[in-house]
Amino acid sequence: MSVKVIHWGLGAMGGGMAELTAKKQGITSVGAIDIDPNRVGKILGDIFEGQSKDVIIEENPEGVLSKEADLVIIATGSFTKEVFPQIKLALENKKNVICIAEEMAYPQQQEPELAEEIDKIAKENGVTVLGTGINPGFVLDTLIIALTGVCMDVEKIEAARINDLSPFGPTVMKTQGVGTTVEEFNKGIEEGYIVGHVGFQESLGLITKALGWELDEIKETKEPIISNTYRKTKYVEVQPGMVAGCKHIAYGIKDGKTIIKLEHPQQVLPELEGVNTGDYINVFGTPNVNMAIKPEIPGGIGTIAMAVNSIANVINADPGLTTMAELPVPAAILGDIKKMLK
Amino acid sequence: MSVKVIHWGLGAMGGGMAELTAKKQGITSVGAIDIDPNRVGKILGDIFEGQSKDVIIEENPEGVLSKEADLVIIATGSFTKEVFPQIKLALENKKNVICIAEEMAYPQQQEPELAEEIDKIAKENGVTVLGTGINPGFVLDTLIIALTGVCMDVEKIEAARINDLSPFGPTVMKTQGVGTTVEEFNKGIEEGYIVGHVGFQESLGLITKALGWELDEIKETKEPIISNTYRKTKYVEVQPGMVAGCKHIAYGIKDGKTIIKLEHPQQVLPELEGVNTGDYINVFGTPNVNMAIKPEIPGGIGTIAMAVNSIANVINADPGLTTMAELPVPAAILGDIKKMLK
Repeated sequence: MSVKVIHWGLGAMGGGMAELTAKKQGITSVGAIDIDPNRVGKILGDIFEGQSKDVIIEENPEGVLSKEADLVIIATGSFTKEVFPQIKLALENKKNVICIAEEMAYPQQQEPELAEEIDKIAKENGVTVLGTGINPGFVLDTLIIALTGVCMDVEKIEAARINDLSPFGPTVMKTQGVGTTVEEFNKGIEEGYIVGHVGFQESLGLITKALGWELDEIKETKEPIISNTYRKTKYVEVQPGMVAGCKHIAYGIKDGKTIIKLEHPQQVLPELEGVNTGDYINVFGTPNVNMAIKPEIPGGIGTIAMAVNSIANVINADPGLTTMAELPVPAAILGDIKKMLK
Repeated sequence: MSVKVIHWGLGAMGGGMAELTAKKQGITSVGAIDIDPNRVGKILGDIFEGQSKDVIIEENPEGVLSKEADLVIIATGSFTKEVFPQIKLALENKKNVICIAEEMAYPQQQEPELAEEIDKIAKENGVTVLGTGINPGFVLDTLIIALTGVCMDVEKIEAARINDLSPFGPTVMKTQGVGTTVEEFNKGIEEGYIVGHVGFQESLGLITKALGWELDEIKETKEPIISNTYRKTKYVEVQPGMVAGCKHIAYGIKDGKTIIKLEHPQQVLPELEGVNTGDYINVFGTPNVNMAIKPEIPGGIGTIAMAVNSIANVINADPGLTTMAELPVPAAILGDIKKMLK
């Protein structure tokens, strides 16, 4: 008996997960749902390396979800509101859910009512829901939390994820404002089509819940990273004086002081101006903990891996809505996943 | 209602935990056991800052353990065999147990029969047992495991904990061979009074269990770190050509290849020869993850904090023998611990 998985959403992330689960011992993909006309009706294994030749990608979720399966991986959107109907349907079909929507890393933060509803439906159906990904889900929350475990006391946390957007295409260039003028950037922020990072609220929620901190206020700033150099990728060109990306910072404030500062400047080719990519966590406390991961953990691979590596933890968990902070430490699944089930 | 804790062992580590629990909201110390004649009969709060003036340190464990309490922290020895009778007694009195004996981080590795017995007694009494500490327990195992969570695949893991023994006294100098000649060092290793690090077996057991790897063989080497410089601390003097510490390395081998290499060279004043202290983890896989914590997380503070910060996780856990890899990620307890209980 294998662990049976259904894939919902087969874009860059969902497709990567379909290929990764195919490589894992003890996991079988038994269904696939997607809306892309280029994929619907095709055989899963014809599109995704190593995958089943018996699974047809279907547009209509109901039929797929009625199959016998342990878990559905949902990789269709960023926001809880978007994915809620999908999660609900999967739960009602008594499937565990792993979802990489950024807000689902801690839906309690921005969608408390939907979070409560998800928790209720999951419990009624005896299954578990987890939101995860590289960030939110790991770098700027779970890993920070884990590092505080060695601290007698913590005064303040500062962390930064400094990455390079060069591999990404036109959509990401647009949502981060890469290649715009400063005026266009400011307009994009105002009108909401330049968004910066999605997930700070959730990371702050996860951290404060785990540590027992309460914030008075969360502030976010989004500023243009104005390039001093000429930067060029496959998808974008940035002249000196134009915008190379979005410097997005979140501040968790208590009694007028910033006790958590999370930074995620997203730009193309930061090395051209001497900026080293990396994940940096500084816990100020007893003791101080200064951690660096250089270069940064790649976002795409990391999200795909974290979702797939969470499968056993989610199946093992008590029913309901859970979080990365409540599950056992994540771990690469390198052996037969069935040995990891309780 | 507070979480009620009993302290068993009030040396440097256990005493530190008594002081740290006193600072935590929602924890009350209700009993203390020690064999040191300088402490027996004294009031806990007279010796340990902030602690209760109502608790008398007692030598006889039976009376103390019969009190109503949620959890016993045992900080009395390094080896499972030593602490087993104490753990057994605590469990039979229906107390959860956190123990910092190095081998208890994963007693299944070197004492599988005792581990099974502990698990059985814990389940019979509806309570949980955890072994933890900074290392084993976190740096060279739990943290490594967590970092693999972002990996699609892992080929090899190399990690090193490079610390400075200068703050430590004569006992540690002796067990690490600091200040000896090379001949004396080799004799000490042979006769077993120079021991190097206790915990590699347990760290390797934790990692391989969590990842689903199986090792064919574990090898350990212990070599003298011969000083090129004159090194002097409050407790020891090392002339050039003499031994500054013990370079202890463990190799986890599969199919003739080292797939896990853990290094823990312990010496005084490594900076004098340009060696930076730090905790270093390199996961070779997809992707590679290169992590550094500089300086290293201090061992004493880290062990005290990790044990106390694990209290809620242990009380919340299912009955039986558990490990750091099975519990939720550790987190500093900074608010009222009662809010962290299920």
